[in-house]
Amino acid sequence: MLPFARVSIIGMGLIGSSLARAVRAHMPTVRLTATDADPAVRERVRDLNLVDDVADSAGAAVVDADLVVLAVPLGAFAAVGAEIAPELASGAIVSDVGSAKQIVIDALGPLMPPGVHLIPAHPVAGTERSGPDAGFPTLFEGRWCILTPPEGADSAAVARLSEFWARVGSRVEVMEPRHHDLVLAVTSHIPHLIAYSIVGTAADLEGVTRGEVIKYSAGGFRDFTRIAASDPTMWRDVFLTNKDAVLEVLGRVSEDIAALQRAIRWGEGDALFQRFSSSRDIRRAIIDAGQDTADPDFGRHH
Amino acid sequence: MLPFARVSIIGMGLIGSSLARAVRAHMPTVRLTATDADPAVRERVRDLNLVDDVADSAGAAVVDADLVVLAVPLGAFAAVGAEIAPELASGAIVSDVGSAKQIVIDALGPLMPPGVHLIPAHPVAGTERSGPDAGFPTLFEGRWCILTPPEGADSAAVARLSEFWARVGSRVEVMEPRHHDLVLAVTSHIPHLIAYSIVGTAADLEGVTRGEVIKYSAGGFRDFTRIAASDPTMWRDVFLTNKDAVLEVLGRVSEDIAALQRAIRWGEGDALFQRFSSSRDIRRAIIDAGQDTADPDFGRHH
Repeated sequence: MLPFARVSIIGMGLIGSSLARAVRAHMPTVRLTATDADPAVRERVRDLNLVDDVADSAGAAVVDADLVVLAVPLGAFAAVGAEIAPELASGAIVSDVGSAKQIVIDALGPLMPPGVHLIPAHPVAGTERSGPDAGFPTLFEGRWCILTPPEGADSAAVARLSEFWARVGSRVEVMEPRHHDLVLAVTSHIPHLIAYSIVGTAADLEGVTRGEVIKYSAGGFRDFTRIAASDPTMWRDVFLTNKDAVLEVLGRVSEDIAALQRAIRWGEGDALFQRFSSSRDIRRAIIDAGQDTADPDFGRHH
Repeated sequence: MLPFARVSIIGMGLIGSSLARAVRAHMPTVRLTATDADPAVRERVRDLNLVDDVADSAGAAVVDADLVVLAVPLGAFAAVGAEIAPELASGAIVSDVGSAKQIVIDALGPLMPPGVHLIPAHPVAGTERSGPDAGFPTLFEGRWCILTPPEGADSAAVARLSEFWARVGSRVEVMEPRHHDLVLAVTSHIPHLIAYSIVGTAADLEGVTRGEVIKYSAGGFRDFTRIAASDPTMWRDVFLTNKDAVLEVLGRVSEDIAALQRAIRWGEGDALFQRFSSSRDIRRAIIDAGQDTADPDFGRHH
């Protein structure tokens, strides 16, 4: 028995289009509807035949859906929420794939009509690509999907949404929204912010040309550029909507960088060695947990 | 006509053992000698049959060599230099694979006997693995190798060493040592320092467990842990020996992070978007230059 019969996806970028493909692959009898604010994307979704119906507006897309998934940048949630609210069927579950979660409850909660269940979710998966052509059906396999139901949420609705994500291959976890936002600030938002920052620094440095930065990037920099090639709109909104947690962790990051800077300045080799030595344990644990490939250099061809 | 007939490699970790394998593959008639300070590594190199002779000391390894390559951490250069100097054959070229270059000229220059040519080199290649088992013969293919001859260096010696690195698949560039140290601070040393720092921050953060950091690392953090799994001794020495350039660039990095922090605090979305948008051009240029794979997510299996 499928958890949902009619699923609507609002926003058909990397995540939305991957979810559509995954639903087709694992729950082929689900009736899939999608839309996107960009007419060119809607056209492309039609051409790729990713869903059963492409609607021209978010409101039209959600009529009769028993699951609605918002896969748009967080900054668009309030507007999309206002647009879909009058069209939602009673008993529908509204969810999303956003990288910050308290903001989803704050932005969408007050808009939801009675009888509609808001259960925010965050599949911790992605690549640096964007758009409907970038998606693929196995994106969520073996990755965690974190559900952050608001206080008093319907437990049957949470169970149905858990089942849905499990069907597309995810491992599901339930978490308190503010705790989610702190954990993800550490494991995702800060790494992206730092990568964007360093790539910018390198591009603008006096005394080193951009050509040199590109040419000799194999020493480590190129990995930062991959992360910093992610969608700028999405990430702008993540930082603006998870501001408190990001600023809190960033404060610690700056302190720790300053401590390393001081150790280098004063030639404290033992302190540097000790700090650097502990990282390998975490790397090994991530590989053991199935969250990264064990191939050296990500298995890049040599 | 081969550039060298008898090559000695001091230090058989990732880079030294990769070089031995590459020489065997591309210049099989070269007589290869190697050594390592660690008796267990010497034993392993014998078992793997990576070279013709395994010497028990650096001094014994360089007798009769026409090319000597130091592949030990930069902190060991002065001691190794003192040990090999009396044994070097006249006309020999002494080179290395260290990630900082002015220090090599400072540490080894005064020790070299007359008639020996010191031509430092830096192959910009590597993985996060260490030791003789981690090496592979194609590591240098398509990667840049930067030669930093001291002022007044013999141009024939530079040409021979260029030919040697070209034979193992590298693209060779000649650069002024201090400029090399600044460029590599940007493209390699700072990314490693920041990765080590962030991995340490994440491991010690109040309110987020180490288990959570591991579990949800697929959002970006896992890429940092790969870089931070590199050899801690090697990297300690890089930061201590390229101190000036690293501290200079790190000052700019901290400024730029502070600017982003301020933009987040004040909700300056346009500034964030603008900053994030420019990174994709650099990413594209790195891929076009053949310095990284174009596969999304490094082609990790999904």
